[in-house]
Amino acid sequence: MVDSWVNSAELFGADLHLELSGGGGRRAALIRALREVVRDGRLAPGTRLPPYRSLAADLGVARNTVADAYAELVAEGWLTARQGSGTRVAQRVEPLGAPRVPRKAPRARGPLHDLRQGTPDASAFPRVAWAASYRRALTRAPNEAFGPGDPAGRVELREALAEYLARSRGVRTEPSRIVVCSGFAHALRLLFHGRVLRGPLAVESYGLGFHRELLAAASVRTVPLPLDEDGARVDGLDRERAVLLTPAHQFPTGGPLHPERRAAVVDWARARGGVVLEDDYDGEFRYDRKPVGAVQGLDPDRVVFIGSVSKSLSPALRLGWMVLPERFVDAVVDAKGEREAWASVPDQLALADFVVSGAYDRHVRRMRQRYRGRRDRLVAALAAHAPHIEVTGIAAGLHAVLRLPPGTERSVVKAAAWRGVALDGLAGFRHPEAQGGAPDGLVVGYATPPEHAYGAAVEALCGVPPG
Amino acid sequence: MVDSWVNSAELFGADLHLELSGGGGRRAALIRALREVVRDGRLAPGTRLPPYRSLAADLGVARNTVADAYAELVAEGWLTARQGSGTRVAQRVEPLGAPRVPRKAPRARGPLHDLRQGTPDASAFPRVAWAASYRRALTRAPNEAFGPGDPAGRVELREALAEYLARSRGVRTEPSRIVVCSGFAHALRLLFHGRVLRGPLAVESYGLGFHRELLAAASVRTVPLPLDEDGARVDGLDRERAVLLTPAHQFPTGGPLHPERRAAVVDWARARGGVVLEDDYDGEFRYDRKPVGAVQGLDPDRVVFIGSVSKSLSPALRLGWMVLPERFVDAVVDAKGEREAWASVPDQLALADFVVSGAYDRHVRRMRQRYRGRRDRLVAALAAHAPHIEVTGIAAGLHAVLRLPPGTERSVVKAAAWRGVALDGLAGFRHPEAQGGAPDGLVVGYATPPEHAYGAAVEALCGVPPG
Repeated sequence: MVDSWVNSAELFGADLHLELSGGGGRRAALIRALREVVRDGRLAPGTRLPPYRSLAADLGVARNTVADAYAELVAEGWLTARQGSGTRVAQRVEPLGAPRVPRKAPRARGPLHDLRQGTPDASAFPRVAWAASYRRALTRAPNEAFGPGDPAGRVELREALAEYLARSRGVRTEPSRIVVCSGFAHALRLLFHGRVLRGPLAVESYGLGFHRELLAAASVRTVPLPLDEDGARVDGLDRERAVLLTPAHQFPTGGPLHPERRAAVVDWARARGGVVLEDDYDGEFRYDRKPVGAVQGLDPDRVVFIGSVSKSLSPALRLGWMVLPERFVDAVVDAKGEREAWASVPDQLALADFVVSGAYDRHVRRMRQRYRGRRDRLVAALAAHAPHIEVTGIAAGLHAVLRLPPGTERSVVKAAAWRGVALDGLAGFRHPEAQGGAPDGLVVGYATPPEHAYGAAVEALCGVPPG
Repeated sequence: MVDSWVNSAELFGADLHLELSGGGGRRAALIRALREVVRDGRLAPGTRLPPYRSLAADLGVARNTVADAYAELVAEGWLTARQGSGTRVAQRVEPLGAPRVPRKAPRARGPLHDLRQGTPDASAFPRVAWAASYRRALTRAPNEAFGPGDPAGRVELREALAEYLARSRGVRTEPSRIVVCSGFAHALRLLFHGRVLRGPLAVESYGLGFHRELLAAASVRTVPLPLDEDGARVDGLDRERAVLLTPAHQFPTGGPLHPERRAAVVDWARARGGVVLEDDYDGEFRYDRKPVGAVQGLDPDRVVFIGSVSKSLSPALRLGWMVLPERFVDAVVDAKGEREAWASVPDQLALADFVVSGAYDRHVRRMRQRYRGRRDRLVAALAAHAPHIEVTGIAAGLHAVLRLPPGTERSVVKAAAWRGVALDGLAGFRHPEAQGGAPDGLVVGYATPPEHAYGAAVEALCGVPPG
């Protein structure tokens, strides 16, 4: 082994350092060293290399070692060898060039106060409990868990979810109707890009633009349903083949779907052979009354229930689930592939343990309390500083909607940004074909900041001049 | 709290048990119990529920508790309430029905001897070392790691991979040109479904049918390149826009791409503005000489290098990487989405630790030794039992190809299956438009069985009657 700097070999009439270092023996070290000098241009294309013998003597290695190294680099294309012309640096080796400009201008550490919706408090991730579940899961897993996986997801997780969702969300299912996925967007992809369902798809007139784009990319036309104080006007459903709803807590306007509407959408699905997609994105977080059970419980054969850990635990895990009517299961699994190609199997096993051990319930309870506290602080601060602002959609979830006087939304979002407060206006969530009035408002996420930074964020928000 | 069986309440003239159990207080327990009896059909649709007062008395709870429970179940759609008609079980509640038939007939424990290619020995997953890396990564991760992630992947992992791939595979890159993905198929999806590259795409005339299907789904025409003893005939490249190769170890026939061909394909890419996709699916496993460096090293601006941990560690982790020419980076990241929507961030951090700590190198070395031993046993056993069979493609990888007499492949695969030996014939890997002879052969994976079962698998293989 040669583990240090060696030899200022007068290789090519130049003072060239060859660093024979690292493991794997002299031959490997020489190959690395020669590759390096060719790579970085210290040996120009076309340069003839010294004969084996002389380099071997210079470096104090065997002649065969040099011959092997040259042969290896010829095989890799760095060098060329021709009868009578010796071994030369190949012409085709291109330098890597200057380091590229970073893809995006490095964020100036993000906004001072992040009140955008969509992300739970990343500082509250239960590292210790999760690591314990992960370790237990890894220890207990059968060997086959580390081979190619079932595209439906690990049965341990599907069993844990069937029990948990029945208990906490009123979902009626069995493990064989659950398919594990990487989150809500992945579920939409499987259903529509995978041609399990087809459009046109009715959607709420406010929602995530990202979902609309994903559907458009699958050539699925989305038809907006108006919203009123009872939620989506499902009486507007007609010839659409499916409808996508956020019944527990309309995203982003914040109200639950009225019981009559819940009944009506199931009736529509039965009468027309339609399908209801239930996006239960924050169903665990309801503060002022018990969670409303899933619409799925009313008719498991008409409703696809979709959830994930992205709000309850972390979006970093990329774990979600679909609870499917039986007739869709095979098609969704086929759309996922022959093997598990997406969701990490160790993470699936860890989540199963996390749910079964009760750690998931404990974490959700803790976060519910924390977010409720934040919501209360937000509401109290606004009542004190801006009593004219109506705060809505606060019975559940991780965000509130602040109604603004007509025509003021853009300037308020701008004024907030100027004060370092990042938040979204309602306008960005509006379906481009939505009918009726477009109220001005702010969507204020109260989950994202770490606990110590939340007070300052609310204070900064209250300091934003109205209109 | 009521935590046990309660009350054979004469609710509806029937002897109906309501189980008020579990946490959350009497109200919650009553809601659960009522939901349950409606759900499972013990209370038929249309049945009128008793007045609050009488049920409250029967159960020994407050009148308001019952009123609240009814209201909740009305809100969820289980019950309906009409003036003058009392509270009734809703008509629309459908029973879940009998448990569905399992999606697939439960495998009769798989084949007795699994000699299919494609999967490493799942029993060799380094559980202890991986769990240690995971725990360390989870402990050290900054909070933002649990928020929405960079779609390029964690920088810790990209830095670790840049160093590792340079050292072990001769890849020339920097972290900003690496994009983390869920495996090779995901990389193909991002490139072609994401419209970063377009067809027609030249491919080797033998390869994975699954990849051809994935490309066909993105409307990418694949054009087969003939194979000879020097690998793919890249002199056949013409107007294709890109070429997909397995230069280190042709899949599945097993030879490396000849140095002249490596040079020629880079020359073609430069002359025609083409792109080379280098599938380095088992580049770490080379037995009889040092690994051939990546073609990518010859021209990082013409070659997309794609690898994963699926062969080296486990396909269960769903982690791979693409090393990209700079001009493709933004488009690939855009195709991935605005945030990390796929690869688990904790797993990415764990892999970064696993690589940087040297555990990855140690594991690869250990497995290289193990697989080399298996290969040697296979070759020796075949030489003893079937000396007429030529064994090829054995210098590297996790599988060998056994050449068979013309016309015998199907019957041998069948005879093997009959003896409990699962393996693939060459025919299944052949591009449907491939020209020239279609040699008969078996693709024998020697990585999949656990160590203790390998000897029996080889013995069973040797007992398969030829032809």
